[in-house]
Amino acid sequence: MSKLLRVNMTTRQCTFEKIPAAYVGMGGRGLTSAIVGKEVPPTCTALGPHNKLVFAPGLLGATICANSNRISVGCKSPLTGGIKESNSGGQPGGHLAKLGIAAIVVEGMAPKGEWLQLELGKDTARLVPCTLAGNNNYDTVAGLIKTYGDKCSYITIGKAGEYKVTAATIAFTDRELRPARHAGRGGVGAVMGSKGLKAIIVNPEGCTNHELHDETAFKEAAKRFAQALTSHPVTGEGLANYGTAVLVNILHEAGGLPTNNFSNGRFAGHEGISGERLNQLTQERGGEGVVAHGCMSGCIIRCSGLYPGKDGKLIGKWPEYETLWSFGANCGISDIDAVAHFDKLCDDIGIDTIDVGAALAVAMEAGVLPFGDAEGALKLVAQVGEGTPLGRVIGCGTEVTGKVFGVRRVPTVKGQSMPAYDPRTVKGIGVTYATSPMGADHTAGYSVTANILSIGGTVDPLKPEGQIALSRELQIATAAIDATGLCLFVAFAVLDKPEALVAIVDMLNAKYGLSLGLDDVGALGKNILETEIAFNRAAGITEAHDRLPDFFNDEPLPPHNITFGITPEELQTTLKW
Amino acid sequence: MSKLLRVNMTTRQCTFEKIPAAYVGMGGRGLTSAIVGKEVPPTCTALGPHNKLVFAPGLLGATICANSNRISVGCKSPLTGGIKESNSGGQPGGHLAKLGIAAIVVEGMAPKGEWLQLELGKDTARLVPCTLAGNNNYDTVAGLIKTYGDKCSYITIGKAGEYKVTAATIAFTDRELRPARHAGRGGVGAVMGSKGLKAIIVNPEGCTNHELHDETAFKEAAKRFAQALTSHPVTGEGLANYGTAVLVNILHEAGGLPTNNFSNGRFAGHEGISGERLNQLTQERGGEGVVAHGCMSGCIIRCSGLYPGKDGKLIGKWPEYETLWSFGANCGISDIDAVAHFDKLCDDIGIDTIDVGAALAVAMEAGVLPFGDAEGALKLVAQVGEGTPLGRVIGCGTEVTGKVFGVRRVPTVKGQSMPAYDPRTVKGIGVTYATSPMGADHTAGYSVTANILSIGGTVDPLKPEGQIALSRELQIATAAIDATGLCLFVAFAVLDKPEALVAIVDMLNAKYGLSLGLDDVGALGKNILETEIAFNRAAGITEAHDRLPDFFNDEPLPPHNITFGITPEELQTTLKW
Repeated sequence: MSKLLRVNMTTRQCTFEKIPAAYVGMGGRGLTSAIVGKEVPPTCTALGPHNKLVFAPGLLGATICANSNRISVGCKSPLTGGIKESNSGGQPGGHLAKLGIAAIVVEGMAPKGEWLQLELGKDTARLVPCTLAGNNNYDTVAGLIKTYGDKCSYITIGKAGEYKVTAATIAFTDRELRPARHAGRGGVGAVMGSKGLKAIIVNPEGCTNHELHDETAFKEAAKRFAQALTSHPVTGEGLANYGTAVLVNILHEAGGLPTNNFSNGRFAGHEGISGERLNQLTQERGGEGVVAHGCMSGCIIRCSGLYPGKDGKLIGKWPEYETLWSFGANCGISDIDAVAHFDKLCDDIGIDTIDVGAALAVAMEAGVLPFGDAEGALKLVAQVGEGTPLGRVIGCGTEVTGKVFGVRRVPTVKGQSMPAYDPRTVKGIGVTYATSPMGADHTAGYSVTANILSIGGTVDPLKPEGQIALSRELQIATAAIDATGLCLFVAFAVLDKPEALVAIVDMLNAKYGLSLGLDDVGALGKNILETEIAFNRAAGITEAHDRLPDFFNDEPLPPHNITFGITPEELQTTLKW
Repeated sequence: MSKLLRVNMTTRQCTFEKIPAAYVGMGGRGLTSAIVGKEVPPTCTALGPHNKLVFAPGLLGATICANSNRISVGCKSPLTGGIKESNSGGQPGGHLAKLGIAAIVVEGMAPKGEWLQLELGKDTARLVPCTLAGNNNYDTVAGLIKTYGDKCSYITIGKAGEYKVTAATIAFTDRELRPARHAGRGGVGAVMGSKGLKAIIVNPEGCTNHELHDETAFKEAAKRFAQALTSHPVTGEGLANYGTAVLVNILHEAGGLPTNNFSNGRFAGHEGISGERLNQLTQERGGEGVVAHGCMSGCIIRCSGLYPGKDGKLIGKWPEYETLWSFGANCGISDIDAVAHFDKLCDDIGIDTIDVGAALAVAMEAGVLPFGDAEGALKLVAQVGEGTPLGRVIGCGTEVTGKVFGVRRVPTVKGQSMPAYDPRTVKGIGVTYATSPMGADHTAGYSVTANILSIGGTVDPLKPEGQIALSRELQIATAAIDATGLCLFVAFAVLDKPEALVAIVDMLNAKYGLSLGLDDVGALGKNILETEIAFNRAAGITEAHDRLPDFFNDEPLPPHNITFGITPEELQTTLKW
C-alpha cells in the first residue's frame, strides 16, 4: 500500500500523500490508532472539527490470504470519550486495499446541514454533494447503485449517523451489496455524520491485488494458513453451520448468558435463539436462506448465513450471537424471527446491536416496557430511525438510556455497553471489559476461548486465578491481528495451531520483504495498546475507569451465585509489561 | 454543634454519634466534602448504595450572625461523576443547626419503589413511610404541613428527584414554607431519590441558638459584620432592590451575557428580563409582590423578592439572574412572566434552572423548538415533571441533551452546564468553570466581582492576564465561606471591606473559643479544595477535564469577537499552591 488519502470536509479537498514516516509499515488498527494518537487532540469534542475519522484496511488486505479483507475505523469516540477502533467485514476493505490506499483520513467538518459523498477510484478521489441524506442504509445503497453500479462497494451511514447518536455505526456492503456489515461500536457513525459525510463509493475497477515481495513464499504460507482454518472444528465447520450463534446454548449452559439486564446467567428461552435453531429454520424454510455464507471476498469461515422469513424471503443476514443475546436473552425475548427483524432494522438505521439491545434491557428495567415484549421493543428500535426523543435516547446506547431513566444497574465500562458474556461467570472477559482501552468489548481480548471453549488452553471461568494473564495475552494478540485485516475468528485456529501464526508471519514477510519473528507479533500488539492507552490518559481516562460497575461486585449472579471479585488493584496490572 | 446523625435507608436505623475526630471543627462544605472524601468510594455508582448524601449547616449556623443559615449538601454527583457540594438558603439549615446536628449522613438505599421520610426533632430522628411520592415539591410540602404543621421546615424532592434525572435538585422551604430554595447543582436530588428519601421534616421546637464561648465578643463582631453588609452598595441596596437580576443589563453591556446557546454576548431583549424590570413590575402590579425579601431567618441582604402576575397573585420568588439568563437570553426569550413561570415550574418539579435552561437552548440549537419560543419551552419543562422521554432528557441537563440530539456546541465542564457569564468575555469566570472540582460553577470562584463590578480590585475581563490568580484566590475564599453557612453574597462586602472578614474570624473565635487568624481562612479553603480534588482524581477526573469545550476557543464571541484563549497549561496552575 502506497498512499494516504486526506479528505478535508471543510475545504472539500482530497489529497493523496506518501505514507508519512511515522506510519510506514502499519495497517488496520495499528494505523488508525497511530493516526488518531498522533493527529487528534485527545480532549477535543468528538463531534467537532478537530476529530478525525480514519479508515484503514489491514496489512494483508488485497492478497490471496484467507479472511484478510477487514477494515478498521478509528477516531475519538463520542461514546467512550477515548480512542476507538471498530472493524468490519464486507467488501470495501479489500477494495480500498486494491486501490493502494493505506488509510483515508477524514478531517474538518462540512457546514451544518450539508451532506457530501466521497467517490474513490483508481488514483482518484472526489467529494461531491450527496442527495441521499434522510435515507437509511438500504435505501442509501440502492440510490448509490443507481448512480455507480454494482461493481463498486459502499460505505454509508443511516439516519442514526445523521442524528449523531452515540451508538451509530458505519455500514459496509457485503458481496451482494447489502449494507449488513458494520463498524458497530463506539459511535463511529456519529463521527461520520458530524463530518457531513454520508457515503463513500469505492470503485476498484482497474486495480488488482498487491504486488508481493516473494509470491511463491506467500502462496505457500497462505495455503498453510487456509489449511489451519479449514481443519479446526470451529473455523472449519462450527461457524459455518451455526454462525457465531453456536455460542448461545454453550453460554447458557455455562451460566454466563446475561438475561434480563444481567440479572441471571441462564435464559429459559435459549434454545429458541440458538445457532442450532438458526440452522434448522434456514434449512426448513429454504427460499433465500443460506447456511454458510461469507461476508467478504476471501472468507473461508463463512459464519454469515442468510436468514429467511416464514415465506422464504430474506429477512437479513444471520443475526450474530451478540445480537441474539442483546435483543434476545438480555431482553427476555426468545422469538428468533423478532431478533432477525431487530438485526435488519439495526443494519438499516445504522446502530450497534449490542449497545441498543442492552439499552432496551435497561429501559425494560426502568419500566418503559416489560421484559419479553418483542413487539414493543421492535417499535422502540424503529423510533431510533424516526428520530423521536425516546428513539434518540435508545440510539445513544446503554449509558445514556440509564441516565435518562435513572437506572442504577447499567452494564457499561467507559460508557460502552458490555457484550454477551456475564463477567461474573466468565471472569476473563470481565478483565477485558474493564481494562480494554476500547471500553467494554469482547473482541478486544476474547477470553471466552480458554474460559469456555478450551481453545488455547483452559482457565476456569469461575475463579479469579489466571484471568489477568489470559486477558493480557489475548489483548496483545488481538491488537496485532486487528492490524492485519484478518477476521478475528482466525484466532480460534491460531490459538490451537502454532503453525497458523507462523503462516501469518510468513505471509507478512513474503509480502513486504521483512524478516519478522513470532516475538514481533507481541511487540506490535503492545505498541498499539500503548498508543491507545496514552491517548486515553491524555483524554482524561485513567485507571479509575478500568473497572466494572458496582453491581457486578454487589450482586451474585445465578446460577453460580458468584460476584466478579477481581480487585481494581489486580485489574491495573493487566496492560502492564 | 455536637453530633452527627447517620440515617441508614437500608436498615431504617437512625443513629446519633459524637462527631468523629476527623470531622471536628468542620461545617458546611468543609464537612460535607470531608465526609464524602473519607466515606464514599470515588468510583462508586452515584445512584447506588455506596454513595452517601450529606446535609450540613455551616459553622456560624444558629447564631445571630447575619446571613449565616445556609445549608450544604454533599455527595458523589451523578452529573459530574465527581464530588459535589451544592448549598441553599431557606429555613432547614438554621433549624438543623439549632437541633445541634452538624451533619446528616444518609447511607444505603431503600428497597426499589419504597419511599421514606425522615422526622427530626430535639434529640429524635426517625424514618417513616412516606405517602407523598408522586407529588412535586409544592404539593409535597402542603401534605407535610398537614401532618407536621407550620413550625417545621421541610427538605423535599419533586418528581425529578424521584425520576433520578441528573439535574434534579433538593428543595428547602423558605420562611413562608415555599419550597423555593434549592441545592440546585450536580443532581443532588437524584441521589436523594436513589436512596428512597422523599422528605426530611425538621422540627426545631425546644431548641435555641448555639451556646457561645464569648457571647459579648460574638455580638460585637456580628454587629460589625452586619454594618459592613448594610453599608456596601451591593449587599445593602442593589440586591434588595433588583435581586441578583441586577446583573442582566450589566452583563449585556459587558458583552458577556450568553445568548442563543452561547452564540452572542449581547441579548437585544435584555431590558425585558432585567432586575430593573423585576422591580418595576413588582411595584406596579402590587398584590402579593414584594421587593426586598429574605429567603432565610437572619438575612439582611434580602435579594429574594416575590414576583406577582398580572393579577397581583404570586407566581413565585423573583427569578435569579441565572434563571432570567438561562430561560431568557440563552433561549432568546425576553418575556419575564414566562421566566417567572419557568422558575416556579423548576422549583416545583425540583430541577436546576441553570442546567435545564441551558439544555433547552441546546435543544433549540438542535431544532427541537425555535429560539424565542417561550410557550414551547414551558411545555417542554412541564414534560420533565410528566416524565416523558423528552422531559427526562431535558431533566438530565445540558450534557445529556447535547448527546441525545447530537449537538456539538454543548457548554459544559465535567458534565455540568455553564452559568450566565460567557467565559470568552469574562475570562476569570472561565478559569473557574474550567478548574473548579464542582464542574462549571460560577459560585465556586465568582470572578465577576473584579472582572465586571470592580469589587475587590479590577481585572480586565477581556485579557488573560491576572485571571488565574483571581480565580484561585476566589475559589479558596469561597470554599472557606461555604464552610461557615454564610450566604456567598456577603463576599461583595468582604472583598471591599477588610473589616468584614475580620468580623467573620472574630465570630468563629468567639463562638468556638478559638484563636484563628486571617491566614487560617485561606488554609481552610485550600484544605477543602484539596479534599475535593483528591476525590475527583480517585474518581478518574484529571487535569484533562479542567478545560472548556472546543468551541469557546474556536468561535470568537460577538460583540468583542474574542475567544477564551487561556491555555490548558495555564489552567493547570490554578489550584496549585
